[in-house]
Amino acid sequence: MDRELAERLRMLEAKVGELSDRLEIMQLIAAYGPAVDSMDRDGVAALWAADGSYDFGGAPLAGRDAVAGLVELDTHKAYVAAGSAHALTSPRIAVDGDRAVAVNCSQVFVKDGAGWRADRTSANRWDLVRTAEGWRVARRVNRLLDGSQPARDLYRRHRPNEVGAPDDPTA
Amino acid sequence: MDRELAERLRMLEAKVGELSDRLEIMQLIAAYGPAVDSMDRDGVAALWAADGSYDFGGAPLAGRDAVAGLVELDTHKAYVAAGSAHALTSPRIAVDGDRAVAVNCSQVFVKDGAGWRADRTSANRWDLVRTAEGWRVARRVNRLLDGSQPARDLYRRHRPNEVGAPDDPTA
Amino acid sequence: MDRELAERLRMLEAKVGELSDRLEIMQLIAAYGPAVDSMDRDGVAALWAADGSYDFGGAPLAGRDAVAGLVELDTHKAYVAAGSAHALTSPRIAVDGDRAVAVNCSQVFVKDGAGWRADRTSANRWDLVRTAEGWRVARRVNRLLDGSQPARDLYRRHRPNEVGAPDDPTA
Repeated sequence: MDRELAERLRMLEAKVGELSDRLEIMQLIAAYGPAVDSMDRDGVAALWAADGSYDFGGAPLAGRDAVAGLVELDTHKAYVAAGSAHALTSPRIAVDGDRAVAVNCSQVFVKDGAGWRADRTSANRWDLVRTAEGWRVARRVNRLLDGSQPARDLYRRHRPNEVGAPDDPTA
Repeated sequence: MDRELAERLRMLEAKVGELSDRLEIMQLIAAYGPAVDSMDRDGVAALWAADGSYDFGGAPLAGRDAVAGLVELDTHKAYVAAGSAHALTSPRIAVDGDRAVAVNCSQVFVKDGAGWRADRTSANRWDLVRTAEGWRVARRVNRLLDGSQPARDLYRRHRPNEVGAPDDPTA
Repeated sequence: MDRELAERLRMLEAKVGELSDRLEIMQLIAAYGPAVDSMDRDGVAALWAADGSYDFGGAPLAGRDAVAGLVELDTHKAYVAAGSAHALTSPRIAVDGDRAVAVNCSQVFVKDGAGWRADRTSANRWDLVRTAEGWRVARRVNRLLDGSQPARDLYRRHRPNEVGAPDDPTA
């Protein structure tokens, strides 16, 4: 194989790998809403790494099984019984080797009278890890966009185009 | 061409084809809201296969022309006159050859007093088909996330990463 | 390099370039909400071309610094103090060489009592330009979906799959 050809192939493979990583992570996050709104515990578990966590304000849910167990929380069951939609915006993603960070906005709409009310509106940071089965959530942190500082800090600590040091977005 | 080179090219072409399919389907679905909210009948028709259908609860609209005709329904014209936005989340997509399934959440926001009210919030399953002109909608099923079972079933019957048998999500 | 190989490489490079352009533009637009909702003036500036503009109904903000200055507007500071989320749908994108057009829907949700109210719901047209630093916003036009004609015209003037002449969406 001549040198120019080898270089063009190498660049294509690198670029395609990068595009594939971003699309896989977008697809992973796109699966969250349908899973929780249909009480699909296995579907939620499949998105997280075995030791992954989800922190939405109180004590974090630690481990894939604990995270998936959120569908059985009374607050969640009340959402689904009333009629709920977890709507997430398309994330901004930075990939660095086998780690990635994504940020986006999530909302929980709940049926209320003649329409649906936004009961939660939050900033999210997703730390992702490449596993043998594909990209999985290592940690998700969710903070209400209610005028308090933590949600703004969560967004600000994410520098676009870099995954950064394993900082603590909850500090 | 040597064997290693042929294999690398073949893998690249397969991967790029897969990424392209997903992005095309994302773009197809992203065109729906702007089309209906601007009364663009031709724009809606262009998204569906000639024999495609749209079932949002009553008798399905069957055929591209009938689907596009939804912009002339009294309920739709009233939405647009009041001020409406059909907001759809980025879909989860599974591709299998020339068929694909996507699921996402859609909402209809309508101007109401000082703001916009979510008048509909639904689970969606899109069955897509590759045609000579690109990916088109073969069938869209939309069920309100109002606490009733059909919307949850629609989400649950979609197994991530597989298109599955041509089952009937409306059963 | 034989002719078949050269042609396959050329097609792969063209296709990968096209996919990359779309994903970069999606990522650019996905960064807007987190930036404005966290008062990240530099983060907003980084999305626009030096001479880019943003027209959301009054006199357009002209130039990257003026656009980024929107985070200091009284209306914006009031949004963020109350608790706000700028939620944008995944855009429909048409690329033509070094220019692109994207359309999507944007909403501003603001904390109001027990939930969040959609205070703005708009049609958006983004004219983008490829710069030495990557894709940047050359012009964004935003019109309220409040039943008036300009938002519908903005969507209708965008022909899917073509960037078109440098028309004036504000005319």
